[in-house]
Amino acid sequence: MKADKNEFDSELRLVCSQMDRMVAADPLPATVRPLYLGDAVRAYPSRGGKRLRPALLIWSCGLMGGTIEKARHAALAVELYHNWTLVHDDIIDQDELRRGHPACHTLLRESFPSTATHLGDFGERRDKFGYDMAILAGDIQHGWAVDALARSTLDGVCPKVTVALIRRMAGWLTPALISGEALDVAFPHMEGVSPVDLETMLALKTGALLQFAAESGAMIGLDTADHDRIEVRELGLLARCGGIAFQLVDDWLNIFGDAKATGKPVGSDLREGKKTMLLTMTLETAPRQASSELLELVGKPDLSAEEIDCAREIMRASGAEARLLGLAKKFSDSASDILVRMPDNRYRALLASWLDQLVNRTK
Amino acid sequence: MKADKNEFDSELRLVCSQMDRMVAADPLPATVRPLYLGDAVRAYPSRGGKRLRPALLIWSCGLMGGTIEKARHAALAVELYHNWTLVHDDIIDQDELRRGHPACHTLLRESFPSTATHLGDFGERRDKFGYDMAILAGDIQHGWAVDALARSTLDGVCPKVTVALIRRMAGWLTPALISGEALDVAFPHMEGVSPVDLETMLALKTGALLQFAAESGAMIGLDTADHDRIEVRELGLLARCGGIAFQLVDDWLNIFGDAKATGKPVGSDLREGKKTMLLTMTLETAPRQASSELLELVGKPDLSAEEIDCAREIMRASGAEARLLGLAKKFSDSASDILVRMPDNRYRALLASWLDQLVNRTK
Repeated sequence: MKADKNEFDSELRLVCSQMDRMVAADPLPATVRPLYLGDAVRAYPSRGGKRLRPALLIWSCGLMGGTIEKARHAALAVELYHNWTLVHDDIIDQDELRRGHPACHTLLRESFPSTATHLGDFGERRDKFGYDMAILAGDIQHGWAVDALARSTLDGVCPKVTVALIRRMAGWLTPALISGEALDVAFPHMEGVSPVDLETMLALKTGALLQFAAESGAMIGLDTADHDRIEVRELGLLARCGGIAFQLVDDWLNIFGDAKATGKPVGSDLREGKKTMLLTMTLETAPRQASSELLELVGKPDLSAEEIDCAREIMRASGAEARLLGLAKKFSDSASDILVRMPDNRYRALLASWLDQLVNRTK
Repeated sequence: MKADKNEFDSELRLVCSQMDRMVAADPLPATVRPLYLGDAVRAYPSRGGKRLRPALLIWSCGLMGGTIEKARHAALAVELYHNWTLVHDDIIDQDELRRGHPACHTLLRESFPSTATHLGDFGERRDKFGYDMAILAGDIQHGWAVDALARSTLDGVCPKVTVALIRRMAGWLTPALISGEALDVAFPHMEGVSPVDLETMLALKTGALLQFAAESGAMIGLDTADHDRIEVRELGLLARCGGIAFQLVDDWLNIFGDAKATGKPVGSDLREGKKTMLLTMTLETAPRQASSELLELVGKPDLSAEEIDCAREIMRASGAEARLLGLAKKFSDSASDILVRMPDNRYRALLASWLDQLVNRTK
């Protein structure tokens, strides 16, 4: 059912170059003052990334028989939307890097006026300046995403459908996705967070935007303002399940993956003391002694290779590894089951490859 | 030309109670998780305030001959929009109070899980938790404002006009207003900021939202998607000029006003070392010795009444006080000149009172 690998790659490249062109040509960031804030607004969206969200939206439109050109601005909108949430996430997580380049607040810190160097707490003021400006950069990108979606009328989407898409983004996606982010902020400080709680968080933080992208593509393809229509709902569910499976696999790769392939040091989640699904499942079922042994490794910044092997062993022996992979497979199977019921056209094959890319990966 | 005081007060009360009802009945905040984040999302919009922005929007619609019921959701949208920008502003300024109640991040700090009290840096972690959650509360309110505007179709605004309003909010207002906020963040760290720079900042930070409110009311009243139509542009300019005049008067009241009337301690801008228009104008024209004397008072937290008198004297003698009031009058006159050319109906009288309220005030 999957598309030929060459076809998938070349179609995805088309989406990437279309997004690159649209981001570069968009007049909005140039209206921003000071000029360095406008540059920061364009930074993440210009860096590329896999563009899996716009591809999902465009192919969902095609799957439903729509002209994919009608989905251009909506596709740009989900990509911009993803990026503003990353900017605010990076502030909250105090991450210094994003896609191998400086995080937005790190970039903006560099624009702190050098005339203020005489001040005693220069470094602290400069850090705060970077964070404050990055809050504002994300806010402008949030507006940019909404504007891009509203520009769907320029692609021939009728105003009624466009308003429905905007309501779904602003009135459903935003509270849902941001609730997921808020739970992610709160969980490390809470006791008794269960695998079910984590699943809810993942469904909101990652699943909701993918669901929105698929639904929007379907609504444009079907020319409907009704996000409750069966095909729209099903395609949304497919994307949401795919997104959850993706995050679960991510969890697994962080401990059991190959550092060379993933590009991330193995066990970084463990080192940072993250309350991941894998850790939570392990602590739920491992014998008391194994649990205490594992807990001593959690949040240890200088974890050795032997200690990571030890953590792996505990996770495997407790059955948590198998349980995690089983859950990922359940979500990925649900997504595939929906896809086989969809119209059989080339976009279905592209979406099957899209799903495969999300789940069956080594990096 | 102004409305009778009783009529103005009772019409404004109507707007207030309508906004109160709509905020209380809106289902969006209840969908947010954790529940305390949903409460924080509703907090500022529930606190009332003067509701001058929704009143401006509704009366602009009436002025153009529109049915004011069509402007309900758009009016809610500008009020919510104002509130999300306040939430992010309060984070940046680290203000602990808003309208006499805890700021959003101060409220959210209280929800930091108490199970984390054993941690050494509990206070610091709790502060960061409050700020992080407040970024997210503002983000959800931003979405809420867009959704409210999109719900204008429920009031009978046609989808085409609704899309035009959303594009104006997301694609013009957001970059403009946030640019104003960014300049306000950057100016204290910059040298050579002139009165003209400050005027630009005020036009963006305060003027743009009032301009948007008036334009939107006019567009709904005229049933047009064209924000460039002459009546729309003129009414927008009126509101923008009114907003700038309002801020200039605010500046003056902070130094020359009566603390009993304003409710703010006289000279707080001076104590906080704010680069206000009044200070900037004074430093531009005062003789060198007076300037140095004044600069010694700027940012002095324990300023005495005598020192404030001394600052006043320097500001007055330099001609800056007169220049500031002259500039405020120029903007307020421009606004009034536009209003006299507008259709003569009861909404024009209400808007004349609205403008008067903004400019001729002692608090």
